[in-house]
Amino acid sequence: MERIYLDNNATTLVDPLVQEAMAPFHTQFYGNPNSLHSFGTEIHPFLRLAVDRLYHGINASDNDTIIINGCATEGNNTVIKSVYFREILKGSKKHMITSQAEHPAVEETMAFMESLGVEVTYLPVTSEGIVSPADLEEAIRPDTALVSIMWANNETGLINPVEEISRICHEKGVLFHTDAVQAIGKVPVDVQKNPVDFLSFSAHKFHGPKGVGGLYLRKGITLSPLLHGGEQMAGLRAGTLNTAGIVGMGLAMELAVNNLEYEQTEVRRLRDKLEDTILQIPDCQVIGARELRTPNTILASFRGVEGESFLWDLNQLGIAASTGSACSSESLEANATFQAIGIDSDLAHTGVRFSLSRYTTEEEIEFVASSIRKVVDRLRSISSTRNKEYI
Amino acid sequence: MERIYLDNNATTLVDPLVQEAMAPFHTQFYGNPNSLHSFGTEIHPFLRLAVDRLYHGINASDNDTIIINGCATEGNNTVIKSVYFREILKGSKKHMITSQAEHPAVEETMAFMESLGVEVTYLPVTSEGIVSPADLEEAIRPDTALVSIMWANNETGLINPVEEISRICHEKGVLFHTDAVQAIGKVPVDVQKNPVDFLSFSAHKFHGPKGVGGLYLRKGITLSPLLHGGEQMAGLRAGTLNTAGIVGMGLAMELAVNNLEYEQTEVRRLRDKLEDTILQIPDCQVIGARELRTPNTILASFRGVEGESFLWDLNQLGIAASTGSACSSESLEANATFQAIGIDSDLAHTGVRFSLSRYTTEEEIEFVASSIRKVVDRLRSISSTRNKEYI
Repeated sequence: MERIYLDNNATTLVDPLVQEAMAPFHTQFYGNPNSLHSFGTEIHPFLRLAVDRLYHGINASDNDTIIINGCATEGNNTVIKSVYFREILKGSKKHMITSQAEHPAVEETMAFMESLGVEVTYLPVTSEGIVSPADLEEAIRPDTALVSIMWANNETGLINPVEEISRICHEKGVLFHTDAVQAIGKVPVDVQKNPVDFLSFSAHKFHGPKGVGGLYLRKGITLSPLLHGGEQMAGLRAGTLNTAGIVGMGLAMELAVNNLEYEQTEVRRLRDKLEDTILQIPDCQVIGARELRTPNTILASFRGVEGESFLWDLNQLGIAASTGSACSSESLEANATFQAIGIDSDLAHTGVRFSLSRYTTEEEIEFVASSIRKVVDRLRSISSTRNKEYI
Repeated sequence: MERIYLDNNATTLVDPLVQEAMAPFHTQFYGNPNSLHSFGTEIHPFLRLAVDRLYHGINASDNDTIIINGCATEGNNTVIKSVYFREILKGSKKHMITSQAEHPAVEETMAFMESLGVEVTYLPVTSEGIVSPADLEEAIRPDTALVSIMWANNETGLINPVEEISRICHEKGVLFHTDAVQAIGKVPVDVQKNPVDFLSFSAHKFHGPKGVGGLYLRKGITLSPLLHGGEQMAGLRAGTLNTAGIVGMGLAMELAVNNLEYEQTEVRRLRDKLEDTILQIPDCQVIGARELRTPNTILASFRGVEGESFLWDLNQLGIAASTGSACSSESLEANATFQAIGIDSDLAHTGVRFSLSRYTTEEEIEFVASSIRKVVDRLRSISSTRNKEYI
């Protein structure tokens, strides 16, 4: 059997149609779109189509702005640091709010803000694993410059109440940013129904290429650029346009939106099937209610089974899963959401994440389900032997 | 005849070998290199090879660091803003030095620094069009945190005395950054012979892909990241690694270095041939001495011929050239270097840049040479008719 990739929250296979669409932009349409000659101008229609697809994908209005950048990490840094420069260093505010369960791209940037004297409130997540709008409302102060809460969590798939959070922030006159990297292509992302001020995404999380992302800005919202320089992106993000990447991301967005129904039904059905099998294993727990999660994600915990060992055994069987965020998988840190939800501490290192995609098949899920069972049995037997030998 | 691309300082054709090398990293080797499973780890040897090629390309030592990022604009912003945070906002310094002839990625970032209260000295260029080490030495103050001077100018190709500037900065204990985006593949870039502290480059300027670049840091030099987040690049630049881009950039660097001799001889010969023809046209001037320029670049000025009109006529003949930096070609600004060199003001809007590459052929240069002559004659005749009609 071929290898099975269930780590789609870390990155995804590039859709072959996307790869095909990008190919001409290396050796055929290779001009710089900012150039005045035909090598530059002939690229414009392709870029317009790509950007239109991005607007359509998140239901942005024509007066909103979407900046193309390198990744959601760049988008997150752009927003937080821009608000720092505009509202804190040059303004009179001094406070930001985020959650205890953010991606490192927000978490570490907020830690940097603290090192600059910004006061940061890290909202806990509730026992459901999501941010409470009531908690947020209480945390907002007159000097709050920014709220940054992710749309869906990378490790658990848990979806925050973005619509309600947007409403509260607007009522209080506070800017709201959401990292929607795990939401695009998995749940409807509609910036009119959910009036966020800033929204970040990365193409490689929805079967687009690595190295290109986008940052949405609501009409009237502006930025201190993270990348100053040329006049690309109306001066909001300098740097030669990554034409192949932009074309690829545009098509990937269209395909993600077209496949949303499939994601919500078929991917969900396969996820639920895998989850049902997992839950038959004794002493195991899946984090967060199904209906609160993106349809592709399971974060499961097996008592007595260390996450890294589990991954290793799965890898030997050709199955790719994760202990959580690939961005921190080398650090072996305990899962932040685990702790916030209040899972007892001896489970904190046992989380294994399975994240499916539209390429996941029924056969793969059946093989993974039976493999998980075997791996858990084997590791628990070793673990209990070890305990006898060494304790 | 096919179209002729003489705008290689704006961007370049991706070498077909580079495109071929990148192709497998979209649908075959698509894992996240930070993942622990085989989809992630199988990418490591490719990345190691690519990074080794970058180290070799600029003769970095094993103890130096090369951060992969999105482009040289990101590299330039990273260095200047990092020095701001570390040495100025949190430190006791307050001064930076750059030149009057930098790329917007440095120029605009320095303008942003000024808006934050940083004192910035913009060194003039000499009548030769380059920065004078003596001027620099005089400008360095006890509170100078950074000197940022480009290796070679994008518009003129003029090469600054980087070795001497490095030496002065080291003697004075001031950090030195160089934007080497126009130097890689055109002149030897050796960070041991030229002990810079920071050096930025972009793959797409040397027949690599757009959307990926690098930032060199000398041993012992560290950064406040521009992109905080995951632990990629030892925590100095977060964001999922652009595997295809890194592999492509590595190979492009190797090819650039392998072709350096060709660039210095054959590309130079073709450039000189074109330049010789241009100089036969009456009332025309080429900016900067040949031996002080990168071997591929000509910035020429034709009295009575407006640069944009010239480009338009060339474009009609299938020839792509530029009025200067593609990054600012939409702004129709006068060329900064022109002004700094002291060209009289009625020539300030007449600059046209021809930038060759290893793909430029003898036939192309011959066609362009004869076309330039015709275009100048035509535009001058219209211009003199106009003058008769309207003045």
